[in-house]
Amino acid sequence: MPDAPVLASPLAVPMGDPAGIGPEILTRAWDMRDAEGLPAFFAIGDRRALAAVWNGPIETLDDPREALDVFPRALPLVQVDDPGVIEPGQPNLAGARCALDSLELGVGLARSLIASGLVTGPVSKSQLYQIGFTYPGQTEFVAERCGVAESRAVMMLAGPHLKAVPLTIHVPLADVPRLVTRELFLTRARVLARALTRDFGIARPRIAVAGLNPHAGEKATLGREEVEVIIPAIAELQAEGIDINGPHAADTMFHAAARSRYDAALCMYHDQALIPLKTLDFEDGVNITLGLPIIRTSPDHGTAFGIAGRGEASPRAMIAAIRMAGACAAQRQASNLTTADAA
Amino acid sequence: MPDAPVLASPLAVPMGDPAGIGPEILTRAWDMRDAEGLPAFFAIGDRRALAAVWNGPIETLDDPREALDVFPRALPLVQVDDPGVIEPGQPNLAGARCALDSLELGVGLARSLIASGLVTGPVSKSQLYQIGFTYPGQTEFVAERCGVAESRAVMMLAGPHLKAVPLTIHVPLADVPRLVTRELFLTRARVLARALTRDFGIARPRIAVAGLNPHAGEKATLGREEVEVIIPAIAELQAEGIDINGPHAADTMFHAAARSRYDAALCMYHDQALIPLKTLDFEDGVNITLGLPIIRTSPDHGTAFGIAGRGEASPRAMIAAIRMAGACAAQRQASNLTTADAA
Repeated sequence: MPDAPVLASPLAVPMGDPAGIGPEILTRAWDMRDAEGLPAFFAIGDRRALAAVWNGPIETLDDPREALDVFPRALPLVQVDDPGVIEPGQPNLAGARCALDSLELGVGLARSLIASGLVTGPVSKSQLYQIGFTYPGQTEFVAERCGVAESRAVMMLAGPHLKAVPLTIHVPLADVPRLVTRELFLTRARVLARALTRDFGIARPRIAVAGLNPHAGEKATLGREEVEVIIPAIAELQAEGIDINGPHAADTMFHAAARSRYDAALCMYHDQALIPLKTLDFEDGVNITLGLPIIRTSPDHGTAFGIAGRGEASPRAMIAAIRMAGACAAQRQASNLTTADAA
Repeated sequence: MPDAPVLASPLAVPMGDPAGIGPEILTRAWDMRDAEGLPAFFAIGDRRALAAVWNGPIETLDDPREALDVFPRALPLVQVDDPGVIEPGQPNLAGARCALDSLELGVGLARSLIASGLVTGPVSKSQLYQIGFTYPGQTEFVAERCGVAESRAVMMLAGPHLKAVPLTIHVPLADVPRLVTRELFLTRARVLARALTRDFGIARPRIAVAGLNPHAGEKATLGREEVEVIIPAIAELQAEGIDINGPHAADTMFHAAARSRYDAALCMYHDQALIPLKTLDFEDGVNITLGLPIIRTSPDHGTAFGIAGRGEASPRAMIAAIRMAGACAAQRQASNLTTADAA
């Protein structure tokens, strides 16, 4: 493992739903901080939820800035309002409130640069909806709190083998063709190109576009979205100097030789991006939101209430999410980007 | 490699378009017949097209039944009408006619049991269309010549890591939701279940179904096709005794642990099946048509006119297609199935 990047401030890790696997995977990540080369981070959430699944040292902070000093000897924690006793695997509304408070505090600390990035633990949307949460997911909540329009907050899935962006996300498949618009394509592709440079340090990122239809429409005999929307949009972006190509037949884009020809794949819908990502990188996929003034990553899995508290959950995706947030924060730091001019 | 199965009759290998990579990959497969444990096969097509790309021994047969004796010492060939000189990479109409004649003869020999199975080389559909071919592809042509309805001729893609069937195939993505019908689902799933036993010797095959929508519709909040079509059809098949389950979120179906829980994945559309297959098994994917009275496989790639004749084409998919046809033929032979009662 490479050395951990040295960050001006630690990463904030809201624990997610305290009854899910968030507490155990973030504590296991702290256990493995040296072996995995992880940058300093602090948890946000509830001390008892951590202690219920872990015997390691926890230090509750008065000020999150203490986290850099504390991190080598104990897991630093910023406590939110006490949710009472939470049983692993038994979600309740107090736990949902704890998750939302932790997330909101984390965004604030990242926006104010007290944290150099945000790594969000898994939440339960159905639990959050019961306490008045109205966003499709954490991504949209974070975007709104950062003052960024939803179309410009771009979800990218990243693993050791692949970076993939779905143009449309949580919509029925039948709605996808009409939602693949020139405007959305241009917006997300520009955000993606910029973020690959700004956050990943790729000077001239190469983006490969997947066709919507089988064989990328096979010269408009298997669908016309390629010729009507995708090809003109690619040409427009190329004219702006973006290294983007396609549309390619989606099925031949994700083997090793094909992947070596691009830095990120721009896909048209959820499963087109997520199937190859999770086929290749099931255990260490990271969900990163591009286009925000802050760095935000998340392990690409859910709360897994069914196994919470048993010590069975793999911390690999959380470790990968922390490592990626640290690397992106170090990249922005090296480029002397501040929150203000990165927005 | 396991020993080659001993077949009552050889496999027929129509060479595909003689200007494509078919001639070189089938001759290279013959070169590697012992190392790869391949059963006896004979080529159908044009001798000059083979000799243009290969210096090995060719014996033109008067009767295809001689192929078993000839195979150890030379590539047995059944010559079709002479197409004249064909340059690799330069397709023409005489070559397209040669490809179609070879295919048609191969089907006839397989149907009459003179060949124990059919391994079709790659053809160019745009070339075939110019000589009056009216089928979407070789699969539909073979099905028609076998007297099997298109819905019952089921395309399966099979590699070392995955077997996957797309319910719908070469149609625009926008048409997929309305084409995913109960009737088509039931028909293809029954053919798949039967073929996994009959051709692959799996006594009680396990079939996993991919949802159409992201997260398999997430309780009908991301699309209703799962609750309206897919779930009732699965229940109907289960009631018939078929071991089929789902619908599953497609993105989490194709990592190694998930794949260990089923023998074949039934997917709803082309890219949902082909993306994971080609991500995992790009070089040795086999296209096999289930539900026919004959065995029919094909390497899952095209004519590759751009590299034909250069010796760059990988024979791996052709070798895998020959091996799979041999194994399926041996399986049917062992079950004492004849063409008549297997139909």
